[in-house]
Amino acid sequence: MNNNFENPNFDTVCPIPLSDYPEVTMAHGGGGKLMHNLISGMMLKVFSNPALDLQHDGALLSVPADRIAFTTDSHVVSPLFYPGGDIGSLSVFGTANDLAMCGAKPLWLSVGFIIEEGFPMNELWRVVVSMGKAAKETGVSIVTGDTKVVDRGKGDGLYINTAGVGIILPNADISPLRVKPGDAVILSGDIGRHGIAIMAVREGMEFELAIESDLAPLCGLTEALFEDSIDIHCLRDLTRGGLASAMNEIASSSGTTVHLEESSIPVREDIKGACEILGYDPLFVANEGRFAAIVPAESADKTVEILQRYPAGENACIIGHVCENTGIPVKMTSIIGAERIVDMLSGEQLPRIC
Amino acid sequence: MNNNFENPNFDTVCPIPLSDYPEVTMAHGGGGKLMHNLISGMMLKVFSNPALDLQHDGALLSVPADRIAFTTDSHVVSPLFYPGGDIGSLSVFGTANDLAMCGAKPLWLSVGFIIEEGFPMNELWRVVVSMGKAAKETGVSIVTGDTKVVDRGKGDGLYINTAGVGIILPNADISPLRVKPGDAVILSGDIGRHGIAIMAVREGMEFELAIESDLAPLCGLTEALFEDSIDIHCLRDLTRGGLASAMNEIASSSGTTVHLEESSIPVREDIKGACEILGYDPLFVANEGRFAAIVPAESADKTVEILQRYPAGENACIIGHVCENTGIPVKMTSIIGAERIVDMLSGEQLPRIC
Repeated sequence: MNNNFENPNFDTVCPIPLSDYPEVTMAHGGGGKLMHNLISGMMLKVFSNPALDLQHDGALLSVPADRIAFTTDSHVVSPLFYPGGDIGSLSVFGTANDLAMCGAKPLWLSVGFIIEEGFPMNELWRVVVSMGKAAKETGVSIVTGDTKVVDRGKGDGLYINTAGVGIILPNADISPLRVKPGDAVILSGDIGRHGIAIMAVREGMEFELAIESDLAPLCGLTEALFEDSIDIHCLRDLTRGGLASAMNEIASSSGTTVHLEESSIPVREDIKGACEILGYDPLFVANEGRFAAIVPAESADKTVEILQRYPAGENACIIGHVCENTGIPVKMTSIIGAERIVDMLSGEQLPRIC
Repeated sequence: MNNNFENPNFDTVCPIPLSDYPEVTMAHGGGGKLMHNLISGMMLKVFSNPALDLQHDGALLSVPADRIAFTTDSHVVSPLFYPGGDIGSLSVFGTANDLAMCGAKPLWLSVGFIIEEGFPMNELWRVVVSMGKAAKETGVSIVTGDTKVVDRGKGDGLYINTAGVGIILPNADISPLRVKPGDAVILSGDIGRHGIAIMAVREGMEFELAIESDLAPLCGLTEALFEDSIDIHCLRDLTRGGLASAMNEIASSSGTTVHLEESSIPVREDIKGACEILGYDPLFVANEGRFAAIVPAESADKTVEILQRYPAGENACIIGHVCENTGIPVKMTSIIGAERIVDMLSGEQLPRIC
């Protein structure tokens, strides 16, 4: 891969001459020469790897394990570019993180582009370069893909689906069913930055707030925990619906109650302020580089210590514990000592956040 | 799975009360209760299988092979429903067929729904039921998924991405690099029906033309060939760009020339007529249940005989052969005996056909 792709300014020259095709046309999705030129001139150049380069209908892969994890996410984030990330890096990290949450090492991604006719070719290039960089950082290969173009007014610039395949790590046995009363709840870092970074742009407040998304690959952190033989019972990344939804899902699936301590949950002061201005509760705001781990109480301190070795885990801490089912999935002791129920959202708080 | 899903009238009662939610709302994609109700009340009911039912961030799968195939396709077909198929069955068969073309047995699919706000809930149900039926027919399990909702005017009802994982069959060694002069080119059936079925609806001519798509799963046919020890060199399904593009791709990748006999290529009379009316060349029209197999000349007759045992292969025949590279990827002897070049399309002929 060309080292220029490392340039954070994304000023690498797009190999598709922009003077010929400044915008994506319907013909770029038609299965003919233009589509082949787009794929070979742009995607294959950045994503190049042996499986992809064969340009088969699918990728042929040797699997060094008996068990794999398989996941998918479509990314419809709006805006496409925001402080700390863009739809390209999000689509790579997001799907790789889902694999990490299964106890897997992410290895291979597929990518499906749904491009709106008229989308600027240089923005597509910028996204593709960002995906290439993110894949390299995560240690995954983009091995197969698909490109569709839809009519003007039938999309919103660009949607990206990524599916991912990873191999289950030897020590991993991740399941909500393993969550037991007495387990500790570990949070990998401060919450709320991804959602607030997106909303700040949408509200035209990105300069006042200057908040970067927490977007980051998490597989390095989870692999370190498994390597150190932490017997993780469950993992969950804190995306749509935030910490509150993740905790409700785990509590419901495991038939337990999760008890959180509000004073232990790290939220940056600027995020607290922004949440007040915008009217959000950080517990429900999406993150893209944060997860919760449910571990045996005796492994809690070691888990935190391992996570804190990594930039994405530097604020890791214990935020609560699992207890017997009280009929309420998630309870929280507030900063002033009162106990409150932490419910799931009924609908959407922040649409198109990922 | 409930046998009612076999009902071709799709009048199975949708488990989501349509009086409460006749249309998909932004909240159905927000990560909260409504999204959980949609997924557990609709998708999980139809797609139910052990891996999916765990509702993990991804599916955990045991892999009974050393090699897998991995592929993806986004489906943006317009209209969503057409004679012989719909976006649901297309998204299952299309991706399973890509795996079959890699010499794989399709086993697992992921599904990513991108739904436009306001999409009728009963149409979503109809699509989900169709996917469930198609998965059953193909022998695949939908093991993981994702649902996103985009604002009104930022989509076109429904887009579906499916990614697929299959295991490479023991005898399979499929690659354009194995295509050699002397090989026979086998076509699995008559061409042009999928594209023309779609265009007939778009042009408001579906009743005059009454053409059904050829949409069908192909893995049964390819598995039969491998079981009978046909040493298939290359396989390609004839989707976007049709037979002409597939032959050009194979010829270019293998450094050979493919020589076709027009008189051998089966095209139904009604398709020929419709192509004339609509101004298309059947060679370039998309199919969704047709493929070409490149096999050693001595296996050609046996290949045809095996394919003809299956409804989707009943019109299988030899349509040409591979010869030394003449500098022109694909040539065709026309019905009147003249020789013509069969080029790739430069752009799109039929947008949003799949």
